[in-house]
Amino acid sequence: MPAAIYHLYHHPLSPESRLVRLALAERNVSCALAVEKPWEPSAVLRQLNPAAEVPVLVIEQNEDRQIISDPMAICEFLEETHTGTLLGKMPVERAEARRLVGWFNRKMNAEVTRLLIGEKALKRLRGEGEPDSSIIRAGCANVRGHLDYIGWLTERRNWLAGDILTLADLAAGAHLSVVDYLGDVPWNAFPFAKEWYARLKSRPSFRNVLSDYISGFPPPPHYSDLDF
Amino acid sequence: MPAAIYHLYHHPLSPESRLVRLALAERNVSCALAVEKPWEPSAVLRQLNPAAEVPVLVIEQNEDRQIISDPMAICEFLEETHTGTLLGKMPVERAEARRLVGWFNRKMNAEVTRLLIGEKALKRLRGEGEPDSSIIRAGCANVRGHLDYIGWLTERRNWLAGDILTLADLAAGAHLSVVDYLGDVPWNAFPFAKEWYARLKSRPSFRNVLSDYISGFPPPPHYSDLDF
Repeated sequence: MPAAIYHLYHHPLSPESRLVRLALAERNVSCALAVEKPWEPSAVLRQLNPAAEVPVLVIEQNEDRQIISDPMAICEFLEETHTGTLLGKMPVERAEARRLVGWFNRKMNAEVTRLLIGEKALKRLRGEGEPDSSIIRAGCANVRGHLDYIGWLTERRNWLAGDILTLADLAAGAHLSVVDYLGDVPWNAFPFAKEWYARLKSRPSFRNVLSDYISGFPPPPHYSDLDF
Repeated sequence: MPAAIYHLYHHPLSPESRLVRLALAERNVSCALAVEKPWEPSAVLRQLNPAAEVPVLVIEQNEDRQIISDPMAICEFLEETHTGTLLGKMPVERAEARRLVGWFNRKMNAEVTRLLIGEKALKRLRGEGEPDSSIIRAGCANVRGHLDYIGWLTERRNWLAGDILTLADLAAGAHLSVVDYLGDVPWNAFPFAKEWYARLKSRPSFRNVLSDYISGFPPPPHYSDLDF
């Protein structure tokens, strides 16, 4: 049986897309990447996902074609169809990993990531005028609470949800790597979170995300530096 | 071994809380309900869930106490610890159910539920002044697209994600029952969605949700009527 071919429709500044890219890479699943602009979805994206959102994973094998949309639906699908776990073994551990994925994908997204990406990048990419500095200030203030929480967790646990690396670490890393691309993570004020991120950043799964480059938005020099 | 005792911290107008109540009831898990105001979280809620959000499920058995926060983390935990499935058997079917849960919990929530609850109920409950009629108009216009999509799906499938009832139906029903409580679902213009909701509403799992009554906000007469 020929190997399955994976395609991921994504955007480099979409934290949910980064989460899926990291989950694929942690599982050593290689995947062709197709960039989609979520604010200007192509006909292809609209056909694949009626919500016209990234990420969308398309898996082709023989005559069969599976289309999976929604970041956690993709991650749970990979969990069910591949060996190894990115959630943990026991149901209560898996619940804790999923709780933290929700924390970053909903709470951190609303309080930090969406504000900073929206004002600093998407407004310019969409030609919608000048960023609102009060929104940027709010995002920069709020990121500190999340770094504090990451530090609090990693003082008590090896990885965010427990002993092993899980989707919780990948979701947090996905959001922070986007914010870091914009230069807005005050790493030096949060040594525990910084130590955790240094461990995450040095994993092979992170390489692809660290080589992201958006035309017109060069990342700060420390972005891809493992010794930041 | 004594039976486990389940407590759910919830709010009657929280669609994510309703999703979990429905998932518990579909599994015949009885559960004591404790109302929390998400806009004024108690010390207990803050201690159970650092995000101070509902729903939170607490399971007590012998000396053991498990605390599960985040709506999908709770639903997936129930899926892993109980017999029967509310997602489907095959990974690709389960992915479709999860995609649709994401559709309702994120997209419909942002476009409809949050707007209408926020303006029509939470503003008054929180003493924040008059509702903004332009936001209410937007929510009422947007609900039509979601009813259309539900109708489109049920013309092709028995339940929203496929042959069997899944969390996709319960998530859609959770959002629509909240909007229906506020009297804002134009059922008669969407006969396919109405037929699907009538089937859902007549399930024993829906009884508890249909008996919800918020002081100062009586539901419209058709809210709990199975023949609406």
